[in-house]
Amino acid sequence: MNTKFKRIGLISKPNATDISATVQALYTLLIDANINIVVDEETAHHISLPSEHIMSISELADQCDLIMSIGGDGTLLSAARALVDKKVPLVGINLGRIGFLVDISPEEMNVQIRQILEGHYHEEERIILNTQIIRNNTLIHEQSAFNEVAIHRLKSPGLIDIETYVNQRFVNAQRSDGLIIATPTGSTAYALSGGGPLMHPSLDAIVLVPINPHTLSNRPLVVDGKSEIGIRFSQRDKHEAQLTCDNVILPSILEDDLINISRHENKIHLLHPTNHDFFNILRVKLDWSKAPQT
Amino acid sequence: MNTKFKRIGLISKPNATDISATVQALYTLLIDANINIVVDEETAHHISLPSEHIMSISELADQCDLIMSIGGDGTLLSAARALVDKKVPLVGINLGRIGFLVDISPEEMNVQIRQILEGHYHEEERIILNTQIIRNNTLIHEQSAFNEVAIHRLKSPGLIDIETYVNQRFVNAQRSDGLIIATPTGSTAYALSGGGPLMHPSLDAIVLVPINPHTLSNRPLVVDGKSEIGIRFSQRDKHEAQLTCDNVILPSILEDDLINISRHENKIHLLHPTNHDFFNILRVKLDWSKAPQT
Amino acid sequence: MNTKFKRIGLISKPNATDISATVQALYTLLIDANINIVVDEETAHHISLPSEHIMSISELADQCDLIMSIGGDGTLLSAARALVDKKVPLVGINLGRIGFLVDISPEEMNVQIRQILEGHYHEEERIILNTQIIRNNTLIHEQSAFNEVAIHRLKSPGLIDIETYVNQRFVNAQRSDGLIIATPTGSTAYALSGGGPLMHPSLDAIVLVPINPHTLSNRPLVVDGKSEIGIRFSQRDKHEAQLTCDNVILPSILEDDLINISRHENKIHLLHPTNHDFFNILRVKLDWSKAPQT
Amino acid sequence: MNTKFKRIGLISKPNATDISATVQALYTLLIDANINIVVDEETAHHISLPSEHIMSISELADQCDLIMSIGGDGTLLSAARALVDKKVPLVGINLGRIGFLVDISPEEMNVQIRQILEGHYHEEERIILNTQIIRNNTLIHEQSAFNEVAIHRLKSPGLIDIETYVNQRFVNAQRSDGLIIATPTGSTAYALSGGGPLMHPSLDAIVLVPINPHTLSNRPLVVDGKSEIGIRFSQRDKHEAQLTCDNVILPSILEDDLINISRHENKIHLLHPTNHDFFNILRVKLDWSKAPQT
Repeated sequence: MNTKFKRIGLISKPNATDISATVQALYTLLIDANINIVVDEETAHHISLPSEHIMSISELADQCDLIMSIGGDGTLLSAARALVDKKVPLVGINLGRIGFLVDISPEEMNVQIRQILEGHYHEEERIILNTQIIRNNTLIHEQSAFNEVAIHRLKSPGLIDIETYVNQRFVNAQRSDGLIIATPTGSTAYALSGGGPLMHPSLDAIVLVPINPHTLSNRPLVVDGKSEIGIRFSQRDKHEAQLTCDNVILPSILEDDLINISRHENKIHLLHPTNHDFFNILRVKLDWSKAPQT
Repeated sequence: MNTKFKRIGLISKPNATDISATVQALYTLLIDANINIVVDEETAHHISLPSEHIMSISELADQCDLIMSIGGDGTLLSAARALVDKKVPLVGINLGRIGFLVDISPEEMNVQIRQILEGHYHEEERIILNTQIIRNNTLIHEQSAFNEVAIHRLKSPGLIDIETYVNQRFVNAQRSDGLIIATPTGSTAYALSGGGPLMHPSLDAIVLVPINPHTLSNRPLVVDGKSEIGIRFSQRDKHEAQLTCDNVILPSILEDDLINISRHENKIHLLHPTNHDFFNILRVKLDWSKAPQT
Repeated sequence: MNTKFKRIGLISKPNATDISATVQALYTLLIDANINIVVDEETAHHISLPSEHIMSISELADQCDLIMSIGGDGTLLSAARALVDKKVPLVGINLGRIGFLVDISPEEMNVQIRQILEGHYHEEERIILNTQIIRNNTLIHEQSAFNEVAIHRLKSPGLIDIETYVNQRFVNAQRSDGLIIATPTGSTAYALSGGGPLMHPSLDAIVLVPINPHTLSNRPLVVDGKSEIGIRFSQRDKHEAQLTCDNVILPSILEDDLINISRHENKIHLLHPTNHDFFNILRVKLDWSKAPQT
Repeated sequence: MNTKFKRIGLISKPNATDISATVQALYTLLIDANINIVVDEETAHHISLPSEHIMSISELADQCDLIMSIGGDGTLLSAARALVDKKVPLVGINLGRIGFLVDISPEEMNVQIRQILEGHYHEEERIILNTQIIRNNTLIHEQSAFNEVAIHRLKSPGLIDIETYVNQRFVNAQRSDGLIIATPTGSTAYALSGGGPLMHPSLDAIVLVPINPHTLSNRPLVVDGKSEIGIRFSQRDKHEAQLTCDNVILPSILEDDLINISRHENKIHLLHPTNHDFFNILRVKLDWSKAPQT
């Protein structure tokens, strides 16, 4: 096959025995297309490959023209975070149940992967967030989030006081259980449970969703994707907050720490089948009514 | 003064220096009315009394015909929990700002307390919850809650799985950040932040409010006050949940523990001035529009 | 068959050709049980009966020991409204899809109807609302509602001003698109779309749900079922409101009209199969998660 | 004064006697600055001007370098709709109470208007919507909306069926009381009452907010400002819907009509004092907590 994707990396859902058949079928399909294949260690559990074809996700990203993730949205999410500093595009193959991100089913994989290899695909760019913990004017930790950054009160009962700034402007000081800062990608995940709006993936926007705010008019706020979001805690509560990026726990926050959240300079490149339809995914995942009879 | 309240106990907000004047004025008012006064240790910081007049809240409850709480809603809440096994009524004096429960202001105290002593008051009964942790069919901990019992995921990111039963009937298994089980009294507190409805204090009802449920149709559910509510966690998450009653932290939950929540057999007796109006309190506290011009 | 239900009335969904088979099967089942059958005019389209067996719903109610409704929740709702002044119990047979109220499927009808006839059933009482339009201190119209009374702004753009009273006490004056006053039965219907809580059918309670209120702290309010709810409109908007009871439109409201809504003195008696489970109906209708694997 | 605004048009709140003093003070201020002043007919009620200085808003827009609106947000909203085809900027002077749009108070007018005349201002562009009713492939009506386009069910009880398309792609068919399509400017108005998110005015985005949707997962949806939104009604309900743009009622919708809503090709240019702060306006208008003590 004549394809611009000469070398493809495979990333698989961890500890998943039920994906072997799909991984092996995908491997065969790619070998038949004369593509050079490298895999992460999880994928190596499902197919026999010489050890020089097995490497870390970061190395995969350096060497490949395309990464394929086999698993659920979670598998693709963590691959995306690992790949954000490279510009390699991503394709998501699901395990028989469509996700918001992984939209190629094992049944349609043969046809749809071939079409993508032949250059027939829909390319989509999605923003990803970068979170920095600043202590004494020094960056002490950095982490990316494809879905959302979440700040939660930790352990102690009672609400926490969160001060929010957008582009150095004070927004508000809210008493709440926490705050979700989500990308459009994350707007269909945790932020939706928190009462946030759905946001089309093409939007360059970030939504801030307060969790159980004491003030009832503290409502979700959508700001431009170029916004720099700053978070501080009031003195007494500072050490009781927990910061997570797509459920990855960050180091404990100390007094006077500042949390900066902004769009990563790179975007995630997702390749979809040409019939990809975000609204159809919403309808399926959110059990919306079917298309009208015409 | 001829009053049926011969002995009155005073309970004060802890560590509050700004309530001294109010406590002293109340003390003088009661002494002038020939009432026998006993106080808790917090109150003893504000007035000089022989040590035999200073005692625990539990002892106060045994000896008094009436308890007066000076402070905010929180002070009255913890007094109410301590008094639930006795039947002594409660009066709440606020610190200049009306609460949902403490509705006598220092300015009006002179008139309104006298009226109450003379028997002119509105008596109100409110339900209170009793929470039991059952381990191996044995009750290992019990705690009352006047506002709400709250179950939260603890530390680890990701949602927890909570199974709810009402009168031994399975209600649902929800993935969420937690669950609030509130009395009508608590419906204006944390449960309101979580999206629960306001409930009139006279209702014999309990509301279950899911916190950020993954399933969007998991909505607040109001059940009869006589309902027995059972909570279990799915295996893997059990040890990661935290149980609080009006913000009092309960012991850690182990695997296979069962949490039972039901109405306490006693009710809390609140005495209010005769012009007490719950809807007026709602309008003031929730910044609702004023009464229409007529 | 030895049954206390000697005479049973059948009520059918209007203009529904697809229920003929179910009506006929039910008819045969009841004839075989030696039960005397009378029907409404809709039902008479499906089975041949002498004209003296065909009558209005009101006459059915006078002559029968039990009424069976064949159709959806809507068919049972309108039957219930028509029967509220009688005390005859109701059974609801659905058309293959469970409703919140009609819980006997055509497939299980044979077994479950026989059990009910033999006296094996779960009897449930549900409150129903009575709405009165008072003009110049005179009752000019009265209508019952099993689900909800709804007040909507009519035609003109812009919000309306609604004054609400509970037991002659002023609650609030809200600017909104309208107000829903629902029974526990109605809490799973329109009130749920408006953001109201689910309420267990056994609750003696009424919920007031504001529609798109201008003041964000105007939240659903649950009051005791014995409450008398009064509604007035501010002068200018009065003639622009529409009042409906379970979607039945009431006469136009004039200036200074008062709307009184309170629990009807009678309750609706529903008979269910003995395995009836309200929470199971919620799980099915609201797509909640399945019962946990045990 | 040396200003680039040589000719300024004044637009006033209709039928408002209480704005005379502000209009006259503003007039004096502008006359003193040697500015040529023209006014609409409403403003002419407050100051004496030769008739050639009095004209329609549209003529004002053609002749002026700047338009000043004196009144509330509503006055500025309707001025903005009238000016959208011109490119003249707008300044809003309030009546003593800050609005979301009119942020110059009569007290600060003297200083702030002078600064604006001298070129010290913050200029902001805001999107505005254009609504078209298409009948038999022909445009039969067009109307702009600065806050929102609202579609409501009309008269008849029961929900309506609305089909929504974004860029010719089917989104969903929802049963509801209606749909709000709002700009970021409108996100603090009616859309907020309907449960929509707050959106920063700089966002190029449109939010679709379903009103009381029957399907609980029908949630507010934010799409790119460049999106073309198409609305159709299902056959039976078509004639029962009402379409409004910022509360201006549009002609009745017939069967098979298509409603197209998209961003107007022009934007509204608002001039603000240099200390303008959108978040401060949110805090004031939504009663958020004050800035933290530092």
